[in-house]
Amino acid sequence: MISKEKQKYIRNLHSKKWRQNEGKFLVEGWKSVEELLTSDFNILNLYITRKFFEKYAELLQWKEYVICEPEDIEKSSTLHANDMALAIVEQKYVDITEVDYENYSLVLDTMNDPWNFWTILRIADWYGIKQVICSRETVELYNPKVIIASMGSFTRMKVISTDLTEFLENTQLPIYWAYLDGENVHTKEFTPTGHIVIWNESHGISEELEKYITHKITIPKFGWAESLNAWVATAVILDNVMRNINK
Amino acid sequence: MISKEKQKYIRNLHSKKWRQNEGKFLVEGWKSVEELLTSDFNILNLYITRKFFEKYAELLQWKEYVICEPEDIEKSSTLHANDMALAIVEQKYVDITEVDYENYSLVLDTMNDPWNFWTILRIADWYGIKQVICSRETVELYNPKVIIASMGSFTRMKVISTDLTEFLENTQLPIYWAYLDGENVHTKEFTPTGHIVIWNESHGISEELEKYITHKITIPKFGWAESLNAWVATAVILDNVMRNINK
Repeated sequence: MISKEKQKYIRNLHSKKWRQNEGKFLVEGWKSVEELLTSDFNILNLYITRKFFEKYAELLQWKEYVICEPEDIEKSSTLHANDMALAIVEQKYVDITEVDYENYSLVLDTMNDPWNFWTILRIADWYGIKQVICSRETVELYNPKVIIASMGSFTRMKVISTDLTEFLENTQLPIYWAYLDGENVHTKEFTPTGHIVIWNESHGISEELEKYITHKITIPKFGWAESLNAWVATAVILDNVMRNINK
Repeated sequence: MISKEKQKYIRNLHSKKWRQNEGKFLVEGWKSVEELLTSDFNILNLYITRKFFEKYAELLQWKEYVICEPEDIEKSSTLHANDMALAIVEQKYVDITEVDYENYSLVLDTMNDPWNFWTILRIADWYGIKQVICSRETVELYNPKVIIASMGSFTRMKVISTDLTEFLENTQLPIYWAYLDGENVHTKEFTPTGHIVIWNESHGISEELEKYITHKITIPKFGWAESLNAWVATAVILDNVMRNINK
């Protein structure tokens, strides 16, 4: 079972302020906890059900965990589901010096909706992107609902918060951005590595960043809709980049 | 201004039951009303602001409209925005005999979230798809919020509700479906016309429909995420189909 004291601590971690002060966050649900167990995150406390234990015994070797009733976990969780599991985990900050320039990265400009943020990261994860560079105003990464929405992608993605203007000014790599009259992504030859800037749909790209764009690209339109949303555009662009550089 | 009686009637149209009984629906906001004016929907009442009139005078020729204060429209609307405009419109039902077999159509299996529904239709509209065939359990089309979310695509899309099993059993065209081990969409040669089945993410495709699939296709994965959501998959599939058949 979860001690009274830990129950209180977990409930405190539902608040952003507390998460920031403590440098900890919650990971909830079977799928997320399963992926957490194979990641390099530092798990401080792990609460699982007997069923979870039976299913993932192999992943649990050399880990410390407490077996609880599902209701015990649910009481402290932000999640209400059948597949209860909960971990208190140390937050991880990746420094700008750790950017891998050998592979594509996404650059997210002021993406402040947490759900959009992780949905984009899930798409990036499908296409093999391992790093995302975002402005300092981007959403708090460690919101428990956001972690759930990422469906495990949070364990694989290097997320780096930095001053985007400074970053784009100094990078030597091509910087791609989806624009209305750029080069057609269906026929464009993409460079083996680069940065793809994804803007916030409601604000558009900031003028300050726009001047660093080196390659304007366009998703061809066959019909009449005015625009595609940011997720959909990200997926279509990545599909075209990956097919081109892997051909 | 809007008469007391009409105000009441408009507010009644916020309810699904009323919309169904009356066979009418509401279109709200500048963007949606602008697109409505160029469509073949039958507009019964149109309430606009002076600003809207000044901007769209040309589209308003030969139309009947009432110029109101924005606050008057807002009072009856489900929308709270600066760009107020509101129309009462007759619902339109397209019969299964009107399916155009010369062009691709989307087939939506039990898509019951209205927002997902119109987001998919907005993507279809970008790629030049003009018809969507859906099961009878699909979301009510004329929910005002859904109409707003479609960003005008509702005016261009033929939406046909029918018995999908019967429809798929009788069509002569290829039926595509995104499957985990189908043919790679990057290398597949698509037929000039066909149906693309989009499933409901949380239920998967129904077994009953699965047996009619003639072409299983797959979006290649370059990374690790388990799945793409239905919108994103729709966009990537359509991007590949359209590039292939238009090359």
